[in-house]
Amino acid sequence: MPGSSFGHCFRISTFGESHGGAVGVIVDGVKPGLPLTVEEIQAQLDRRKPGQSSVTTPRKELDEVHIMSGLFEGKTTGTSILLILYNKDAIPSAYNDIKDKFRPGHADFTFLKKYGIRDYRGSGRASGRETAGRVAAGAIARKILNERGVSVIAYTKEAAGIKCENINLDIIEDNIMRACDMDAASKMVPLIERLAEEGDSTGGIVECRINGVIPGLGEPVFDKIEADLAKAMMSLGAVKGFEIGSGFSCASMKGSEHNDSMNKTGFVTNNAGGTLGGITTGEEIIFRIAVKPTSSISKIQKTVNLEGEEVEIKTEGRHDPCICPRIVPVVEAMACLVLEDHYKRQESLTI
Amino acid sequence: MPGSSFGHCFRISTFGESHGGAVGVIVDGVKPGLPLTVEEIQAQLDRRKPGQSSVTTPRKELDEVHIMSGLFEGKTTGTSILLILYNKDAIPSAYNDIKDKFRPGHADFTFLKKYGIRDYRGSGRASGRETAGRVAAGAIARKILNERGVSVIAYTKEAAGIKCENINLDIIEDNIMRACDMDAASKMVPLIERLAEEGDSTGGIVECRINGVIPGLGEPVFDKIEADLAKAMMSLGAVKGFEIGSGFSCASMKGSEHNDSMNKTGFVTNNAGGTLGGITTGEEIIFRIAVKPTSSISKIQKTVNLEGEEVEIKTEGRHDPCICPRIVPVVEAMACLVLEDHYKRQESLTI
Amino acid sequence: MPGSSFGHCFRISTFGESHGGAVGVIVDGVKPGLPLTVEEIQAQLDRRKPGQSSVTTPRKELDEVHIMSGLFEGKTTGTSILLILYNKDAIPSAYNDIKDKFRPGHADFTFLKKYGIRDYRGSGRASGRETAGRVAAGAIARKILNERGVSVIAYTKEAAGIKCENINLDIIEDNIMRACDMDAASKMVPLIERLAEEGDSTGGIVECRINGVIPGLGEPVFDKIEADLAKAMMSLGAVKGFEIGSGFSCASMKGSEHNDSMNKTGFVTNNAGGTLGGITTGEEIIFRIAVKPTSSISKIQKTVNLEGEEVEIKTEGRHDPCICPRIVPVVEAMACLVLEDHYKRQESLTI
Amino acid sequence: MPGSSFGHCFRISTFGESHGGAVGVIVDGVKPGLPLTVEEIQAQLDRRKPGQSSVTTPRKELDEVHIMSGLFEGKTTGTSILLILYNKDAIPSAYNDIKDKFRPGHADFTFLKKYGIRDYRGSGRASGRETAGRVAAGAIARKILNERGVSVIAYTKEAAGIKCENINLDIIEDNIMRACDMDAASKMVPLIERLAEEGDSTGGIVECRINGVIPGLGEPVFDKIEADLAKAMMSLGAVKGFEIGSGFSCASMKGSEHNDSMNKTGFVTNNAGGTLGGITTGEEIIFRIAVKPTSSISKIQKTVNLEGEEVEIKTEGRHDPCICPRIVPVVEAMACLVLEDHYKRQESLTI
Repeated sequence: MPGSSFGHCFRISTFGESHGGAVGVIVDGVKPGLPLTVEEIQAQLDRRKPGQSSVTTPRKELDEVHIMSGLFEGKTTGTSILLILYNKDAIPSAYNDIKDKFRPGHADFTFLKKYGIRDYRGSGRASGRETAGRVAAGAIARKILNERGVSVIAYTKEAAGIKCENINLDIIEDNIMRACDMDAASKMVPLIERLAEEGDSTGGIVECRINGVIPGLGEPVFDKIEADLAKAMMSLGAVKGFEIGSGFSCASMKGSEHNDSMNKTGFVTNNAGGTLGGITTGEEIIFRIAVKPTSSISKIQKTVNLEGEEVEIKTEGRHDPCICPRIVPVVEAMACLVLEDHYKRQESLTI
Repeated sequence: MPGSSFGHCFRISTFGESHGGAVGVIVDGVKPGLPLTVEEIQAQLDRRKPGQSSVTTPRKELDEVHIMSGLFEGKTTGTSILLILYNKDAIPSAYNDIKDKFRPGHADFTFLKKYGIRDYRGSGRASGRETAGRVAAGAIARKILNERGVSVIAYTKEAAGIKCENINLDIIEDNIMRACDMDAASKMVPLIERLAEEGDSTGGIVECRINGVIPGLGEPVFDKIEADLAKAMMSLGAVKGFEIGSGFSCASMKGSEHNDSMNKTGFVTNNAGGTLGGITTGEEIIFRIAVKPTSSISKIQKTVNLEGEEVEIKTEGRHDPCICPRIVPVVEAMACLVLEDHYKRQESLTI
Repeated sequence: MPGSSFGHCFRISTFGESHGGAVGVIVDGVKPGLPLTVEEIQAQLDRRKPGQSSVTTPRKELDEVHIMSGLFEGKTTGTSILLILYNKDAIPSAYNDIKDKFRPGHADFTFLKKYGIRDYRGSGRASGRETAGRVAAGAIARKILNERGVSVIAYTKEAAGIKCENINLDIIEDNIMRACDMDAASKMVPLIERLAEEGDSTGGIVECRINGVIPGLGEPVFDKIEADLAKAMMSLGAVKGFEIGSGFSCASMKGSEHNDSMNKTGFVTNNAGGTLGGITTGEEIIFRIAVKPTSSISKIQKTVNLEGEEVEIKTEGRHDPCICPRIVPVVEAMACLVLEDHYKRQESLTI
Repeated sequence: MPGSSFGHCFRISTFGESHGGAVGVIVDGVKPGLPLTVEEIQAQLDRRKPGQSSVTTPRKELDEVHIMSGLFEGKTTGTSILLILYNKDAIPSAYNDIKDKFRPGHADFTFLKKYGIRDYRGSGRASGRETAGRVAAGAIARKILNERGVSVIAYTKEAAGIKCENINLDIIEDNIMRACDMDAASKMVPLIERLAEEGDSTGGIVECRINGVIPGLGEPVFDKIEADLAKAMMSLGAVKGFEIGSGFSCASMKGSEHNDSMNKTGFVTNNAGGTLGGITTGEEIIFRIAVKPTSSISKIQKTVNLEGEEVEIKTEGRHDPCICPRIVPVVEAMACLVLEDHYKRQESLTI
């Protein structure tokens, strides 16, 4: 059974390889009558697109989205919305070197093992470009959530070993790291630029905060809010970890410390991270993900070729030295998709 | 849309509250012709059941499983298998104190907000007892996986602030912490016993290692193996974090460090944790989860009652001072369910 | 992927063989706070149970239902409801004759081909007894639908070649055929009694009328109301055909005859049968199913055994000479499950 | 929950309105390594396209399909395949008359009730043009089925009251009715041409025969082969009935007549229509559908407008006087989708 769909009542199905004809998404379950413009979707895609700054890949991609169905006179009709982004023509010769070798950290080996065939052009289906469809769909979910009074904001919390000491949500779009601390950002940038020059990369931690969610979202026992958020985030190629609220720090805490007591005004603390028993409390939902260093580096690496012979590989092209700034809008999009789906699921339960 | 099912080609649906008539599970997609005994399932349930040692709750529960369908002359028929565990009669008076108050760290508040009604007896559907169904189903998945050559083993890696320094998989069932390091276990136990005496609790980290999996499992782009494992683990009530391979430590690594290079014999390192692009590499799958301190403590805590008045609460009854030893078989069960489902999904793709 | 679940937002999963430990169903998606008694469910099961009259099997089955979860203080909690009916002990010797032979019209051959193993006791999973779970779940859906103002009523329209000329919905439960025409019923009964004496059986047509449904239910383009009703009905073992509104008679009509025109008060005719474009119009939903003659007959039949040798078979036991009267409550139950699911789906769309 | 997807292991999701940007489909679960050309898909679309003859609409549509993903060097990669057909520019003025009126027999009224908004251009999502996506996806399923040795053929059995007396599968593509009897076809054509001149339409019956299917396909208890076929067929806008094997004629048969006995060479008769207990027997699968007269007629009809006022309507444009010839390839496509899905489901069960 294929795994290219996500969500139930609000559901997306993505398609496309980085160098096929197009990438995109079908969005199902969008409420009818929602005013929607292509510009609103494009705005989110522009936050994800390559070539934004010195800490992202200078590669240019044609990330122009088209709405092909489900819209009539500027409003959603309640039927399937196809969002498509056409690919630029690939230059086949650019992939001659990776065609026969498995790039370390990439899905080259596993795709071949799984499917017995591999579209090696720009990672094919395993390309980060696939997330464009998610971001486009997420822009629709975000718009509906905004109407519900929900805000979703993510940012770089740590990168290249530099941690943000302060959290200022107002400056995130003002620095190319999308960090929440200007001082930290100013230290991250030169470090990452140097890594880029060396042909290397680094990782980081991205944090996401969601406010305005009603209490009661989440479907026991498997589709807990944090379970679906974890799945959403771990379905991003570069993510190696997920934690909510206290996260891994809970391991050494006592119950008397960790339990969030309540008073007349609500919860006194939020170690839970906005969910109890997998259901939202109405408090801020806060989670973090671990982002691995970009696999594409231009340093020489050791690997094997299709024949199993040991070879060296040097992936050409210009890649993101740190994926954090560009994964921020993807994290937000996935969070929006999870939440909008659960809003609808809760409605369908209690009716 | 309800959330009580898990898996696709190998699928379970659980039911039951801690003090209703029964808890249990329907297991669908079990291959026909598999020899199966109730004892094989009971053996896994016995690892999960209360009352095992001084670091688990001394509470006794009737955890006897019955196979009600899908079995004929000792073999599975390929149809739905109902596994049921009857509950002992509840003593309604035992819940008078928690009936009108929200226990900190519990799902009391959120269940009431979600459903408008709450079965307050022993946490109702949010009880850890619900995982008995998962363990019972997991025992079947485990048996099939063993035939496939797959082994799944979890253990306590850290508890009460004590970290295991060594990993010895042979001693896990020989210590009541189910820790992988006897020295660490011998330090954990007195610490946790003391916390229990104080009416407090603690958390920990559980690690899981899966060996023998073929390369090629995992369904891009959403149902990546690590995404489904993360969802499975985060769907357990006490889990606050999930990481695979390098996990959160990847954040400060360089790409040239993190990328697992290959040579003639396979992968040289395993920072990936057994998966690339969401598909198994054939290497060991290794992940960790963060287990929060048990919410049920007998210390006096501050909370509010149904009327929103500030009150104190002291949950009676004897609870697990640390859930790690008992969550280990649940983690293994959920991992087995994910893997068996993906084995079947892979088969259905390539046929 | 297994096929033992039905519905999405309101979903059931059935389990059980006719001679295993139990049959039953998990019902998910029931709205919380619904008052529910075991008697309400039992009442529907009693309409389905064997031994009701001279035109049903005189076989007695223990059809007592138990609610094992999802209910608290007489109200639904919004979580999974397990309904279980224990089987009486089977008498293994009773099946010696059918153990090695394929009964004509039964699923013996196909189950063995599919699963490689066959629970031959009383048809195993293919037994009509499996529908008890559907009827039990349908009783819950029916109760909710009644609150919504929806009524669902089915009846025998034709049996043993006798057609009902009049439709009187008030007399359906007053005749053992559950026919809508007393005159027709009085002709059907002696005919069917004679067939029973001859060890033979007959078929019929059951019609179902649903009133009070709001316009707007049905999910284009695949989950049209009539598509889901057809699937629901064709999933019953004895059903060979389904038609809605004009049904097969539409084949020789003109568009100018068939199109239902509208005036100020609504639709003038109802050839559509209550749905246009797969979405309810608000008019009466009316459909019919073809019920095949019961496969179990005591006449001598020709078949083959497991070794492929030609043999004769005479199925002992007392069977329904016509399944119509007992399939009526099953048809209603399945219709209720489809409608309640679509009510919830519609809510989740427009919110 | 939206209803625009069909199938599980082999799954399609369609999108598009008749006058939006495009119509099409995502196909998931296609086995990797399958050689596939755009021409193979186009060939099936050409059988469905308008303008083929005097008994189909003379309207011309641009039915050129493009493969946008999931193909690499002429072979499927095992990932999502997007098939897209761009729409020609609509002439908005052409819809002025139907904009404010509900066309009898069409989904105008129900779409407005359901969604509160209606894309009135050419029926929007309810247009028959939506089936182009199904046919395109079905062409892929058909190719795989052919490799499995399965053939699927449908044809007009009856139209305008004329029944085919003979069944000659070789002449179906040789007559514009796609009928199985040349004599009958030669009577149907002038009748239907006259109806077209009168601005009227007629219905018919389409029969489908599937050969070469292995025994064992179908998933009890809900996803029986005939249940999934019925759903597939009843999800086509013009279909009012479905029957398999003996179908509605079973109602007046005796069990001793209807039961298909077996001998050494297999089943002696095939009243079952190729399935027992919802599982394929290996015999020919044979089913029929009732096709209603085309709703679009140019005769003056009575209806109401958006304000509920009684008005007359005359739908301009040239429509199919009988949809049978063009629904034949759609029926085949849907049957292929059901079968390929069940082949995969069976594989995933027994592994």
